[in-house]
Amino acid sequence: VNLILLEAAELRDGEAVLHDKRAGHLINVLKVAAGDNVRIGIVDGAMGVGRVRSVGDDAVVLRCAFEPDVTDPPPVDLLLALPRPKVLRRLWAQLAALGVGRIAITNAERVERNYFDTHVLTPACYRPLLIEGLQQARDTRLPTVSVHRQFRALVEDQMDAIFPDGLRLVAHPGEQTPLTATVRGHSERRVVLAVGPEGGWNDFELALLEAHRFVPVDIGPRTLRTDTACLALLTLVHDAMRARI
Amino acid sequence: VNLILLEAAELRDGEAVLHDKRAGHLINVLKVAAGDNVRIGIVDGAMGVGRVRSVGDDAVVLRCAFEPDVTDPPPVDLLLALPRPKVLRRLWAQLAALGVGRIAITNAERVERNYFDTHVLTPACYRPLLIEGLQQARDTRLPTVSVHRQFRALVEDQMDAIFPDGLRLVAHPGEQTPLTATVRGHSERRVVLAVGPEGGWNDFELALLEAHRFVPVDIGPRTLRTDTACLALLTLVHDAMRARI
Repeated sequence: VNLILLEAAELRDGEAVLHDKRAGHLINVLKVAAGDNVRIGIVDGAMGVGRVRSVGDDAVVLRCAFEPDVTDPPPVDLLLALPRPKVLRRLWAQLAALGVGRIAITNAERVERNYFDTHVLTPACYRPLLIEGLQQARDTRLPTVSVHRQFRALVEDQMDAIFPDGLRLVAHPGEQTPLTATVRGHSERRVVLAVGPEGGWNDFELALLEAHRFVPVDIGPRTLRTDTACLALLTLVHDAMRARI
Repeated sequence: VNLILLEAAELRDGEAVLHDKRAGHLINVLKVAAGDNVRIGIVDGAMGVGRVRSVGDDAVVLRCAFEPDVTDPPPVDLLLALPRPKVLRRLWAQLAALGVGRIAITNAERVERNYFDTHVLTPACYRPLLIEGLQQARDTRLPTVSVHRQFRALVEDQMDAIFPDGLRLVAHPGEQTPLTATVRGHSERRVVLAVGPEGGWNDFELALLEAHRFVPVDIGPRTLRTDTACLALLTLVHDAMRARI
């Protein structure tokens, strides 16, 4: 944990009283004492500094001061065919750590229908995991998550609302166009990356994405598991966007 | 699984009889029948095609034919400060899938001593996980693994033997030099990447690495967990090496 994230509602007159895992981390790992400063942030808000007012057996009181500006959300969005629940569970924190503005989870032919019943798709499950990733990466901007059971309706009717601007990329094995060169060759300020299911998008899905401005890009010579591929591709997009600045 | 890997000793007169998880995968997932062809490879050997001779309740007999050439090992090596055993266990398959020629696991000040007692460092644990990653990525080249409890002895006495040639990089937060530009600016055919412990290398360790030709490179603006960082950095090195061809 490199940042303690607070919910806005936890602040009372500039103070926050922590009782949960965050208090445990401050007490047992960082071993804070009264007067110490710790890096803090408000979920979707500003970062700042918390001065430890008191440390109890299982509670820490922080006096909080925040920076005037809130950072922008990460410039990369993800359109992800729902992976196996076990894989998605592991992914949430890592996606938030790498930095994603919006995560749209979609159906696809090669997604098993019963995956959509998983509690891993509920905010009660993923929100704490996303916050864990943000605390690791020192960010406050919580990815926006939406779940779409109708791939076609999503692409045809909702895409422009969900991903209004930006370069659209779809990762597909065997394409000739390298992802990084494509990102560097465009000047859009946001990129949305579509990552298919374990067996790939089918022909219809790929054609529909291409008809809606998704540029197919190569994902490298090795076939990766969805979670590894997701992390690898997000890393490449982020790096290519930084390199073109 | 995108490739069934066989041990050389499993081959008898061009045939292999599978009884284990691989047979289960062929029978239950790929649902093979006699006459089908499946992609196969020999650990550290050639790739080829296995023609299904017979399928039993829990056994599959393959008639194997191999390509004449064996691919080179991936051109990237990893020097990794031992992470928490739980993290390392998850990493093995992903490292093999992304492609690493050699993995040297080392001690560092910020590595907890008792981590070295873990069975995750034994070939009995990591070899099947590495093979799982190779089967995913369709590669036959098993990463060479070595474990080093003495960081200083490793860097001072063994580095030139373990990583004889190639560009040496050490990932370090706050450096100005971007990793990808550094790789693209060099022509060495191999790259070794040093990734520190969760709290980073200490000053002595970083200085010792630099004294032994490791170039410090930036790891991006976000602080990542060791496993996420490892995957992200290996991805960037691979991509940069492909881009310069």
